[in-house]
Amino acid sequence: MRGMKKVKVNDLKGFIVEVFEKMGCTREDSLQAADILVRAELRGIGSHGAMRLVEYVNLWKNKRVNVIPDITIVNETPGTALIDGGKGFGLIVAPKAMRLAIDKAKNVGTGWVSVRNSYHFGIAGYFAMMALEHDMIGIAMTNANPLVAPTFSKEPLLGTNPIAVAVPAGVEPPYVADFATAPIARGKLDQKFAAGLQAPEGLLQNEKGEAVTDPDILSKGGAIKTLGGDKEHGGHKGYCMTSIVDILSAVLPGANFGPLVVPTLGYLAGEKAGEDRGIGHFFGAIRIDAFQTAKEFKDYMDLWIRTFRGATPVDGEAQVLIPGDPERLSEKIKTKEGIDLPDSVVIKLMGIADEFGIAKKVFA
Amino acid sequence: MRGMKKVKVNDLKGFIVEVFEKMGCTREDSLQAADILVRAELRGIGSHGAMRLVEYVNLWKNKRVNVIPDITIVNETPGTALIDGGKGFGLIVAPKAMRLAIDKAKNVGTGWVSVRNSYHFGIAGYFAMMALEHDMIGIAMTNANPLVAPTFSKEPLLGTNPIAVAVPAGVEPPYVADFATAPIARGKLDQKFAAGLQAPEGLLQNEKGEAVTDPDILSKGGAIKTLGGDKEHGGHKGYCMTSIVDILSAVLPGANFGPLVVPTLGYLAGEKAGEDRGIGHFFGAIRIDAFQTAKEFKDYMDLWIRTFRGATPVDGEAQVLIPGDPERLSEKIKTKEGIDLPDSVVIKLMGIADEFGIAKKVFA
Repeated sequence: MRGMKKVKVNDLKGFIVEVFEKMGCTREDSLQAADILVRAELRGIGSHGAMRLVEYVNLWKNKRVNVIPDITIVNETPGTALIDGGKGFGLIVAPKAMRLAIDKAKNVGTGWVSVRNSYHFGIAGYFAMMALEHDMIGIAMTNANPLVAPTFSKEPLLGTNPIAVAVPAGVEPPYVADFATAPIARGKLDQKFAAGLQAPEGLLQNEKGEAVTDPDILSKGGAIKTLGGDKEHGGHKGYCMTSIVDILSAVLPGANFGPLVVPTLGYLAGEKAGEDRGIGHFFGAIRIDAFQTAKEFKDYMDLWIRTFRGATPVDGEAQVLIPGDPERLSEKIKTKEGIDLPDSVVIKLMGIADEFGIAKKVFA
Repeated sequence: MRGMKKVKVNDLKGFIVEVFEKMGCTREDSLQAADILVRAELRGIGSHGAMRLVEYVNLWKNKRVNVIPDITIVNETPGTALIDGGKGFGLIVAPKAMRLAIDKAKNVGTGWVSVRNSYHFGIAGYFAMMALEHDMIGIAMTNANPLVAPTFSKEPLLGTNPIAVAVPAGVEPPYVADFATAPIARGKLDQKFAAGLQAPEGLLQNEKGEAVTDPDILSKGGAIKTLGGDKEHGGHKGYCMTSIVDILSAVLPGANFGPLVVPTLGYLAGEKAGEDRGIGHFFGAIRIDAFQTAKEFKDYMDLWIRTFRGATPVDGEAQVLIPGDPERLSEKIKTKEGIDLPDSVVIKLMGIADEFGIAKKVFA
C-alpha cells in the first residue's frame, strides 16, 4: 500500500516490548503493553496502536508516569474494588484491574473495579474481551481529555469516553462493541484535515458553539458535539452516555474527571504531574451462568446474532453487521499478512529506536 | 392550559389505584403502580404516565398479563439474580427486582438483577432513583418493541431501549439521566404528525432504508435510525448502545429480544400471549462506599455537577443542564400546582372509569 510499510506482527511486538523495557518496565509488563498495542493494530484500530508509543515515551520523559507502578487496592468488597494505578501506564494497570473484576465475578456473580491514577489504556475492547474465555460478559470504559461539549455548552468538558462490551456466544463469534461515545474521533478529523476535506454536518462547533464543518476546529477552541449532535437530533442523550462514562470512570474512583483531565500528550512537565489524579477506568465482568445456564445463554445469543446478521440490508450494503465483525475480519487478515503502518508513524518509531538504541530491522 | 385538564396529584393517584384494583391487583401493588405513573407525570414525562393505563387495561382484557403474578427467583448468586416476572405488569415486577439489586449491593458492593416475562415498566428513572436513598448509584434499562433499524438494516429490529442512571450527590441534587437510546421517541413523532410538521433530518428512514422526514413513516414500514443517524454521523455507536440494552435486558434473562418482542398495545389475543417470554429489564445498584467513602464521593460529585453547570452556555441558553434538572423542576412545580392532562387522555381515562364503574370526580 502506498505510504505504508508492512511489518510482521511478531517483529512489531518485539520492537514495542523493547521500547517499554528500555523505559524500565518489567519484561512481563512490557509484553502485556505490547500485546494490547499490537492487538489494536490487528483489529484495524491503528489510532490506538503503535503510533501511541510516541505519547507514552513523552509521558515517561516528562516523569509523569511510573514505569514500575505501585498498584494498590484502596478498598474492596466481595464484588468490587477501587484500585490506585500508582501513575502507571494504563496498558499495565488496566489488565490487572480487569483480571480482578473477573476473579470477583467467579465468587459473587459479577465483579466491578474502578481505577484512578492511571493513563491512556489503549483499546477498551481488549479488556472487555478478556472476560470471554471465562464465559463472562466483559465491560470496560475510560474517561479521557476533554474534546466534547455537553449540550448547550461552549466549552469541551468531556472526553470521547469509550465503552466496550464483549458478549460470549456459542458457535457464532462473540459480540464485541468497542466505541468512543462521541460521534467522531480526533484522529478521523485529522485525516479529513490532511486530505482537505470538511467534516460531516452537525458534529462540530466553534468556540462560540456555532455549527461548523472545519475539521481543524479543535485547535481553534472548538469542540466535538455529543453523539446525536444538537438537542433536536438527540444530542442530549449522547451527553448522558458520555457523562455516565466520566462519572463511573473518574468520579467513582476519584480520578480527574471531565475538564480536570490533563492531556496525555506529554508536553506537561513533571511538576504538574504530581498534582493530578490521572485518568480513571471502570471494568465489569458478569458471569452468564449467574443468570441462565451458559449453554442456554450462548444458544440464545447465537440466535440474536443470526437474527440481526440475517436482517435485510439497505441497498448497497452486503449485510447488517454485528459489533466486532469488522475488527475480527481485520484481525484474521493481518495476523496472516502483517500490519501496515503509515510512513509517518514508521518515521516516529524509528526516531524512538534511535533514541533508545534499538535495532530497526522490523522496519527494513 | 388550552386542551388540557388540571388534576390534583393525589386525586389522579387515587384514580389509578382504583383502576389497578378493579383489574384484580393487590392494594399494595396498585399503590406501587400508581406511584410510578404519577411520578412520570410529575417529572414531565406524560408519554409514560396516566395515558399508558389504556394499554395496561388492554393487556389485561386480552389476558396477556397476570394481575397477581408469580414472581420467582430462577437463579441467584450473592451479587446477582434472574427473576421471572410471571407475566405481571412491569410496574409491579420492576420495583421488586430493583429492591433485590439494592439488597444484594448491601452485602457484596453491587447487585444486578435481570428480569424476563415482564411488561412495560414506565419510566426507567423511577427504578434508578430507588438506589439514591441507600447512597448507591442506580441503573435501570429495558428492551421494548422494535421501531429502530440497526446501521445498514432496512428493518426495525430494536426498541427505543431506555437507560437510566441515578448518581447521589452531596448538597447538589442528584444526577439522573433517563433517556431512550434512540434519537427520538414515537410520541414526539406523533406530535409532529398531528401538527403537520416534518421530523428533523437524519432520524428516520422509509421501508427501503432511505432517509425521510415523514413523522408518520413508522406506520408505513419505516424505522427510526439509531442515535447519531447514519454511519458518517456515528449511528453505528447508537446501534451499539441500543443493542447492548437489548442483550443485557433480554438475552441475559431469556426474555424476547429485538424483533421477537410482542407489542404491548393489547391488540393481540390471549393465545399469543402464552407463547412469549415478555420483555426484559436489567437493574443495577452500586454502593458508592464500596469505592471511596460516601462523603468523599458526594463531595466530588458535587464538584462535578457545579463544574458542568458552571460552564459557559451557548448564546440563547441560560446554562448547561445536568441530567435530571428539567425533570426535577417539573416535579417541584407540578407537586404544588397539579398535573395537566391533555383532553385526549382525559377522554380515554373517563372511558376506563365508565367501564370499571369508578367515580370521575378527579376530572371534574
